Amino acid sequence: MSSVDIPDIVIGRLPLYLRTLSRLTLEGVKITSSHELGQRLGISSAQIRKDLSHFGEFGKQGTGYQIAYLTDQLRRILKVDKEWKVALVGVGDLGRALAHYNGFRDRGFRITMLFDNDPAKVGTMLDGFQIYDSSQMKDLIRRHGITLAMIAVPAEAAQKVSDALVSAGVRGLLNYAPINLSVPEGVKVQYIDPVVHLQRITYYVEE
Amino acid sequence: MSSVDIPDIVIGRLPLYLRTLSRLTLEGVKITSSHELGQRLGISSAQIRKDLSHFGEFGKQGTGYQIAYLTDQLRRILKVDKEWKVALVGVGDLGRALAHYNGFRDRGFRITMLFDNDPAKVGTMLDGFQIYDSSQMKDLIRRHGITLAMIAVPAEAAQKVSDALVSAGVRGLLNYAPINLSVPEGVKVQYIDPVVHLQRITYYVEE
Repeated sequence: MSSVDIPDIVIGRLPLYLRTLSRLTLEGVKITSSHELGQRLGISSAQIRKDLSHFGEFGKQGTGYQIAYLTDQLRRILKVDKEWKVALVGVGDLGRALAHYNGFRDRGFRITMLFDNDPAKVGTMLDGFQIYDSSQMKDLIRRHGITLAMIAVPAEAAQKVSDALVSAGVRGLLNYAPINLSVPEGVKVQYIDPVVHLQRITYYVEE
Repeated sequence: MSSVDIPDIVIGRLPLYLRTLSRLTLEGVKITSSHELGQRLGISSAQIRKDLSHFGEFGKQGTGYQIAYLTDQLRRILKVDKEWKVALVGVGDLGRALAHYNGFRDRGFRITMLFDNDPAKVGTMLDGFQIYDSSQMKDLIRRHGITLAMIAVPAEAAQKVSDALVSAGVRGLLNYAPINLSVPEGVKVQYIDPVVHLQRITYYVEE
């Protein structure tokens, strides 16, 4: 099956399904339905069935989904049935919080390499990993074959960091800097900017 | 004009336009075009013109947009021509990073009230603001008329926190906990979960 056939918006919902399945598992639930998933997510059950049908048959009409099975399949589809090594560039307040965050590990990711350009931080350890100088970024990322990175540097520095990461072989970027990046075709970027979300909320909120 | 008429996906792009206009302003640019905005954002110029046309006429064919004017208009539409007071619940690593983040202020937001349930943190100061006990949340938020909040607590605690915030009058939530919240109609929730973004990337990245 080619990924070209499936709309990106469908792919974007799969991690939410996976997250909800994990939550149900934690609650001791073994079988669920598109109806239950939909209620938890505020998505219609028809949409969920349609999304999943792109990838095969995961449940039978009337019997629901085996959560363990569907979880495994979604992990495989999203390629998080393995652990991805992730580079983190920028060890300020946010970078530090990301390095400490323990929610990556059991969901397919592990920050294994940290970079900063502050001489006071370079060479120090954070959560068992050394902080390297950004000047070594290209070389180390290439040598370790890292293909995923998170950017947590100021907006002014983000494009330069992105260029260096991409030239070293990174193919996926999660950018926390509040700026859009220009990347070559074949490189995927996702953005996290809390203000963008807050502004999307305030449009609707009565003052 | 009623907000009901305009698709939420259009509203979701307005903060990106505003962010890009601010960037152009920083670069000393005074006039832009849907073409230039589109190139910076990876969105078609036709889409941008169509999005903006929901709200009026912001430029003339061939002469482009006056950035200062369009910026003002977008700020007004998104209601960030004022400063919103925001409550932050959960002062762990992430909450601390959010409290320190200086990117909120000039984009319409200011964290003015912090809550945590850790007795070691309650009563201490962070960036000039006292950290209050979560048990005081309802009362203080209601008294100060705060309508926006960020949730940065563990997944297990998020729904309870959300319920308390909503009952105190909060109408917009930015939820960092990796769990979907159930809120009454009229309350807007946006989510930030880096793993959801990373999993959306890995689907496309060759291993």
